[in-house]
Amino acid sequence: MTQVAIIGAGMHPCGRHPDKTFTDIAFTAAQNALDDAGTNWTDIQAFFASHTRQGISAGEIIGQEFGLTGIPMFNVENACASGTTAIHMATQAILSGAHDVVLVAGFEKMQRGVIGGIGEPSSFGARMGLNVMPSLYALKAKKHMHEFGTTEEQMAMVAVKNHKNGALNPIAQYRNEVTLEEVMNSRLVCDPIKLLECCPTSDGAAAIVLASDKVARRFTQKPLIYVAGSSVETSRYGVDDWEASRRTAETAYEMAGIGAEDIQLAECHDAFTIGEIMHYEELGFCPIGEGGWFIEEGHADITGKLPVNPSGGLKARGHPLGMTGVAQVCEITWQMRGEAGTRQVQNDPKAAITHTQGYGGVCAVAVFKK
Amino acid sequence: MTQVAIIGAGMHPCGRHPDKTFTDIAFTAAQNALDDAGTNWTDIQAFFASHTRQGISAGEIIGQEFGLTGIPMFNVENACASGTTAIHMATQAILSGAHDVVLVAGFEKMQRGVIGGIGEPSSFGARMGLNVMPSLYALKAKKHMHEFGTTEEQMAMVAVKNHKNGALNPIAQYRNEVTLEEVMNSRLVCDPIKLLECCPTSDGAAAIVLASDKVARRFTQKPLIYVAGSSVETSRYGVDDWEASRRTAETAYEMAGIGAEDIQLAECHDAFTIGEIMHYEELGFCPIGEGGWFIEEGHADITGKLPVNPSGGLKARGHPLGMTGVAQVCEITWQMRGEAGTRQVQNDPKAAITHTQGYGGVCAVAVFKK
Repeated sequence: MTQVAIIGAGMHPCGRHPDKTFTDIAFTAAQNALDDAGTNWTDIQAFFASHTRQGISAGEIIGQEFGLTGIPMFNVENACASGTTAIHMATQAILSGAHDVVLVAGFEKMQRGVIGGIGEPSSFGARMGLNVMPSLYALKAKKHMHEFGTTEEQMAMVAVKNHKNGALNPIAQYRNEVTLEEVMNSRLVCDPIKLLECCPTSDGAAAIVLASDKVARRFTQKPLIYVAGSSVETSRYGVDDWEASRRTAETAYEMAGIGAEDIQLAECHDAFTIGEIMHYEELGFCPIGEGGWFIEEGHADITGKLPVNPSGGLKARGHPLGMTGVAQVCEITWQMRGEAGTRQVQNDPKAAITHTQGYGGVCAVAVFKK
Repeated sequence: MTQVAIIGAGMHPCGRHPDKTFTDIAFTAAQNALDDAGTNWTDIQAFFASHTRQGISAGEIIGQEFGLTGIPMFNVENACASGTTAIHMATQAILSGAHDVVLVAGFEKMQRGVIGGIGEPSSFGARMGLNVMPSLYALKAKKHMHEFGTTEEQMAMVAVKNHKNGALNPIAQYRNEVTLEEVMNSRLVCDPIKLLECCPTSDGAAAIVLASDKVARRFTQKPLIYVAGSSVETSRYGVDDWEASRRTAETAYEMAGIGAEDIQLAECHDAFTIGEIMHYEELGFCPIGEGGWFIEEGHADITGKLPVNPSGGLKARGHPLGMTGVAQVCEITWQMRGEAGTRQVQNDPKAAITHTQGYGGVCAVAVFKK
């Protein structure tokens, strides 16, 4: 049975890059990943590009910059889960025997301000104001507070933690720490969500090189990080989509042959702080309803028992849509190799998880083992 | 070894549908395909959506209209080759054992006029005016005329044939025949390409249901059309990309265990008439340089030895980008089943081929057997 290993990871910093094209930033990330893997572009047998709004054949445009080698190229989109979806498809392609060495690049240059107008303008969701993200997450937050007594302070603690982590990450968009008071006193966006609880809109790019275990050691002597399980699924309950994340994670755990209790590191979808609290529960880190306590008790800190978003997460690293899932896997790779510098987690993780979810109820979860 | 069969095909007519959303037209096509396959939405284990500009999570938005079953959904883009790329990935997913019954829907609502501004505005291609399609194809036409003596009349004959076929196709955008004189006298778009040699911009949707041979007969007693070979590759020579089509076709032929001489039916990428002439050669229907004679001698007619684009092709059926590849496979399915009505080919084809190519040098070819 073929195993799929991450052999290289590379990024271009998140932020605002008005003077660079998407090709510029994606090329940099991909070249960094190729270098990290000890591969050349000519070693790459297929290229999966992940983005949401960069136009027709963006992947091919980037590939042409590297050189015309004739390889298969694919553009994959699944909203905020695009990057992890591309990795899922690339993994499947290797498992099917079609390729042995594959490059995945996720990238995005985003417009300014909140993403608006997702979906058909005439849809029920749009007419209800549910086609913008803060309103969707505000509903989830209110429900969680009502059902489980989760507090606004606990949600704000997620922002404090992720900014603290982001301040240690050279590629993060926000490298400033924030206090609980600053988060609590920041402008209300959609009750109870405050400005400092929202991820930014960002430009950025990330890339990884995946290889079958058959060939991985030809390129690198670094620790191999295996994609032990990967699933993409969709919601059965619409807006209240906690069930999709739990089910998708269960599929990935089953494929990996481990359970939530084995996970020692996570990068999850903290587009809004309530999201991260709910994902602790959905991914099985704590019982349903206890996510607020999980952050308050420090378990998710870099020094905690299960560090979550040591990269700074979507909140502080940034959230260029097509990049995010790939950026999560870069962070997992560096952390599991012990290469994460001042933000290195201290529990030497043997198993890790990434989680993204996107508009339309799509959810992508992958489990990694060393 | 698993085999992948097409068990259902459905379409929404091509044309201009200002009063319908992309969800409307894709839903209709998908429901028609489900009905044709004898399947329900709840039988579908994964959904692949193909489109180029319909926004974030368009596939999930359509899937939600059918119902929240929790299945994996993917949005795939590869310019004009998007539809065939989605079918390629869906086929791989079945071959990998991940799923047994998969829906693929290709759809597009296009803006008016020629597609402009593909790629980075600052790129060399854009500054040379090579980011719009007529200029790229005009260069190919001039080169083919210079090297092989292909005439403007021979190119115009492709439009005459495909309009004749489209006139017989209930879902075609253009159902009018045109004469050679009308094509030759139509407005010059980019020398030597004339207006009636260009495909239109279109709205439309097409869908197919794919199933593993293990389960196909649970749903339908109609003839099973097998995806015998499928490849997606990219150009090694940039603009002059005849080599990519030939190489991609060779891969697909090899996978199918047949050669060009076995092909009895084709749907190929006639975005501009010179394209179809070149594709006769690239797909191996005739020697390089003799494509002009292939059309002139009537071989590609519905009554010819190797009917090409009996649907009317991109030229007359229409070319909604994300739909096109899926529409080609619908036509192949109906023709190979003998269900194509007044445009039914008469050679009872045992093997057929589809071919699309897109901006960025991407090419997708699939070979089908009965």
